[in-house]
Amino acid sequence: MSATTATTGPTTGKVEVTYLPADTTVRVPVGTTLFHAAHWAGLPIDSTCGGRGTCGDHRHLADRLDGGWRLSCQCPIAGPMTVEVPRPLATPKAATMGVGRFVLLEPNVVKLFLALEAPTLADPRPHLGRVLDAIEDAGYGREYDGRVLARIGEAMRSSTDVTATLVGDRLVDLEPGDTTDRAFGVSIDLGTTTCVCTLIDLRTGASVGVASTINKQAPFGADVIARMAKAMQDPQDVEQLRDAARATINELLGSVREQAEVDAREIYEAVVVGNATMLHLLCGVNPESLALAPYAAVFTEAQDLPADQMGLDLHPVGRVSLFPSIGAYVGADIVADIVATGLVREAKVRLLVDVGTNGEIACGSRERAVATAAPAGPAFEGGEIVCGMRATEGAIEGVRLTGGRVELQVIGGDVEPAGICGSGLIDIVAQLRLVGLVDKGGKMRTREDAEAEGHALAEQLTKRDDVNAFRLAGDVVLTQADIRALQFAKGAISTAIETAMIALALRPEDLEDVLLAGSFGSYIDPRSAQVIGLVPPVTVARIQAVGNTASEGAKMALMSFREREVAWEIPGFVDYIELSGVEDFNDRFIANLGFPDLATLPDLPSELLADLPAADLTTKAAR
Amino acid sequence: MSATTATTGPTTGKVEVTYLPADTTVRVPVGTTLFHAAHWAGLPIDSTCGGRGTCGDHRHLADRLDGGWRLSCQCPIAGPMTVEVPRPLATPKAATMGVGRFVLLEPNVVKLFLALEAPTLADPRPHLGRVLDAIEDAGYGREYDGRVLARIGEAMRSSTDVTATLVGDRLVDLEPGDTTDRAFGVSIDLGTTTCVCTLIDLRTGASVGVASTINKQAPFGADVIARMAKAMQDPQDVEQLRDAARATINELLGSVREQAEVDAREIYEAVVVGNATMLHLLCGVNPESLALAPYAAVFTEAQDLPADQMGLDLHPVGRVSLFPSIGAYVGADIVADIVATGLVREAKVRLLVDVGTNGEIACGSRERAVATAAPAGPAFEGGEIVCGMRATEGAIEGVRLTGGRVELQVIGGDVEPAGICGSGLIDIVAQLRLVGLVDKGGKMRTREDAEAEGHALAEQLTKRDDVNAFRLAGDVVLTQADIRALQFAKGAISTAIETAMIALALRPEDLEDVLLAGSFGSYIDPRSAQVIGLVPPVTVARIQAVGNTASEGAKMALMSFREREVAWEIPGFVDYIELSGVEDFNDRFIANLGFPDLATLPDLPSELLADLPAADLTTKAAR
Repeated sequence: MSATTATTGPTTGKVEVTYLPADTTVRVPVGTTLFHAAHWAGLPIDSTCGGRGTCGDHRHLADRLDGGWRLSCQCPIAGPMTVEVPRPLATPKAATMGVGRFVLLEPNVVKLFLALEAPTLADPRPHLGRVLDAIEDAGYGREYDGRVLARIGEAMRSSTDVTATLVGDRLVDLEPGDTTDRAFGVSIDLGTTTCVCTLIDLRTGASVGVASTINKQAPFGADVIARMAKAMQDPQDVEQLRDAARATINELLGSVREQAEVDAREIYEAVVVGNATMLHLLCGVNPESLALAPYAAVFTEAQDLPADQMGLDLHPVGRVSLFPSIGAYVGADIVADIVATGLVREAKVRLLVDVGTNGEIACGSRERAVATAAPAGPAFEGGEIVCGMRATEGAIEGVRLTGGRVELQVIGGDVEPAGICGSGLIDIVAQLRLVGLVDKGGKMRTREDAEAEGHALAEQLTKRDDVNAFRLAGDVVLTQADIRALQFAKGAISTAIETAMIALALRPEDLEDVLLAGSFGSYIDPRSAQVIGLVPPVTVARIQAVGNTASEGAKMALMSFREREVAWEIPGFVDYIELSGVEDFNDRFIANLGFPDLATLPDLPSELLADLPAADLTTKAAR
Repeated sequence: MSATTATTGPTTGKVEVTYLPADTTVRVPVGTTLFHAAHWAGLPIDSTCGGRGTCGDHRHLADRLDGGWRLSCQCPIAGPMTVEVPRPLATPKAATMGVGRFVLLEPNVVKLFLALEAPTLADPRPHLGRVLDAIEDAGYGREYDGRVLARIGEAMRSSTDVTATLVGDRLVDLEPGDTTDRAFGVSIDLGTTTCVCTLIDLRTGASVGVASTINKQAPFGADVIARMAKAMQDPQDVEQLRDAARATINELLGSVREQAEVDAREIYEAVVVGNATMLHLLCGVNPESLALAPYAAVFTEAQDLPADQMGLDLHPVGRVSLFPSIGAYVGADIVADIVATGLVREAKVRLLVDVGTNGEIACGSRERAVATAAPAGPAFEGGEIVCGMRATEGAIEGVRLTGGRVELQVIGGDVEPAGICGSGLIDIVAQLRLVGLVDKGGKMRTREDAEAEGHALAEQLTKRDDVNAFRLAGDVVLTQADIRALQFAKGAISTAIETAMIALALRPEDLEDVLLAGSFGSYIDPRSAQVIGLVPPVTVARIQAVGNTASEGAKMALMSFREREVAWEIPGFVDYIELSGVEDFNDRFIANLGFPDLATLPDLPSELLADLPAADLTTKAAR
């Protein structure tokens, strides 16, 4: 309940709401309820019915309505306003998740133990009505899935003490006795490459099982473009891709169920994130239109679908909740990133970058945010790199060139280096920049020039198929062509970031944090990202790898239906920029192919510049 | 739209609403909308959105709200009121159905042809949003079935000219091109014995296919009690009974589809009626609780279920709509009877009797109505009758005893009589009463007594296993015990009717019509029903066989979602009387075992009494 004071203001777009006594202001789309806006601002309002408006508080409020009192969950915001919120009377369980997000444990799945009266001649209500009446008395709605009819008949043959299970206010099961101690949900991050599944005990919020595996769609093509191409050939291929996604998830479900000794019937809900192509395919929807200009998705909206229809091994009347996407190439995974980082809920301005074949960018704060996507190409996944490989055993994932030595970090530890993965590629090029073997334009020095200058690493310079190359170990080299491929990839992403920052009129120093999201982002060395200009020139301390925030966002939505409702609003809050519609994009892309002048980086320690040749040092001195 | 004048009155129960300029008053439950109450009163209000409140008229109405203008479909009735209704601007197609009911063709299934704009960079809305926006522009809602996502993707690959199909405001399909000329629905009357299926062209309202067959549950037992007993033994039997019901319906669907050359995908909706046991079994719900006191149903509420979940061969995303029941033994078939006869929508007071193993009774008018059910036993279906048989070839279905002759009407025409079916049983006993061979107490005269009186039919009197009997043909006789069985059956029904009439304070002369419903009812001779006292003593002209009104009611609900919404309100309007809770029922049942004094019948022609012995005539003269 809140006492409201409406002030004059606009009736469309976004409006400011100030909550007292916290004196916190939030900007939300017109039509958002006061309840959800408060949650958006990080001020959860206590409610018995969880903001569904079924608690009957309106009956108690009837005589207060003239005093400005309103049920916050029933009051859409029409203009700027100031609201007083009473102190919550109870504090539910909570956890810190994602990037410092505080999440109340209020799952969408509710189990209610009901001690019903047996029917009598005086009260011969049908079982269904009797159950729904009791559920309504507990503050929930009367919706139910038709398949629950048979379950009600069966449960009430043996007992009038029963447990009703609701998913999002919809009755999905009735069991005899008290089973309220068993309720699970699962978060699923369906990546193009890898799928991660976390089983959550919805009574405690604890993760009780985690599993990940390669997406079984992999044989159809390594990236979304290949999968789309496959699907475009033949509608039957769409079904195969759908079945592969289902099989991937069901394998993981089997694994996490075994870890926690949980039955499929006890998992009532799955929250799924992934890029738009993955979600299309999981729903058996041909993603063809995503592949062709103007890149219209078949759907970007959040979906609430029956588990059996989705072919997932959950409770047969369970639900599958798909995160919404922002655009064709800024998918549900990025919305989940935004949820987990609180990007659009905090005052500070931040940049979120999810680097991959497709680089996704979100930038802003609770005031305003934009998102865009850049086609980076396969370089970051080792594609089109002479010695490129995926981040598996034997891949060079980190490099240091100090004191004339080549130090390698190889996946698997003490194994022979077999190739270079994405984070290794970024590291090598950054290090070559720092030791002066690659110039601003991306040109690698020749062995002859390096030897003439007496460069300590001159011996590593070689040729591969007549092209200049730098030898890392054995046969593994980085060629001039590889550097060009990296330049194209990082150029696309940095130009997309630039576009987003122009839209928000931001300078690099306005960015409080640069968050590198996604499993790949966790492995990128922040300094290297800064040196190659993958991210704007901020101090390294502000560049932060945040891990698999997509999974975290999905888990948060699973644990809190309020977080989910906020998540569903994100596409409406974030402005999507389609780069193919940005006029000067190509010009700026060309301009961004080069690397940053090292002198322009705000915090480069002088010892890192020890090996730098005179030419580059001069530039620094000149400024 | 309607201008309303609220007057003071009660806030619960039923209230009167008067519509002007028609000056028609209707009594409806509190909370009914003005729109539906008008339809209830037979005054359809024109609306583009069909009373769903999605038409946007509220926007146009905004400046009229202070003048008392309200959207009739959005205005629940709280107390007695008078309403002015503007003249409808358009008159949709209509048909006369059931017992003189006028039905507008407004099916729940709507096909919309949408000429969509192709996506562009400037308007890259997802296909789903584009389709839903167009549907909303046409005045409908944004609900959709998840499986339609794949259909949208597929349809819009080939064309932006598409046809959307909505069932009850829910998008269930999207097809390329214009398919608005193909939309079908099916009504299903799932009887314990026989199942009838009618295919309706929803553009014209025409029946384009009809089929009926024996319920494939028959091998599990002849009547609902036997089916329940089977289901109580083992939950697996419930599934078998469900599968048998599905198979029965699917066989009929195959037949009507073939008759009309219609594809399963073109049938978007089924409306199903039947008794509560049949509907429980069709849903795979154990009907055990219906069999045991206090006879609580698992559900009596109307159901809207997915066709695939119900296992019916309709459009895979189609819907199955089950009529609601009034009580455990006054099922959806009786609600459909009430719809087809307009029993609760007309001013005249009528009695509806559906005679069978279970006799169902509804009585009343639009002012008030009650319903009850009497366990009549198997006599009317030929059970427990020495020469009893079902109404199949060779069954005596009609008898006349005039001029000392026995005239028989036999099913199949010129075949040897093999036994007696229900309508034959009623006829024979009535005729034996009229010719004085059975007295008021039900006692059959002996051959000796009849010969002594010189009765023209004395020769027909015989013995079967030492019990007095009347020979009809060959070995086919009616015994004294058969008359007792009939007395129990008709006694149960006439006592139930009496109970209903007491509840409404009605005398026989208050009844404007006595409607004999159900397939059996159509074969009962009204005079015979009157003579044996199956129905109250009204003139034969007022006793009317109305045929399979259950099927008619289902068809009406299929053709008009407004009829359906009115039907859904019927259980709330009709008071259900559970006879096992009526204290003096058994006493009155004993008193009703005898037959009526012929002299009390209002219109018995004297020639019918020609053969009546002195004892009975004396009674007549004495009054």
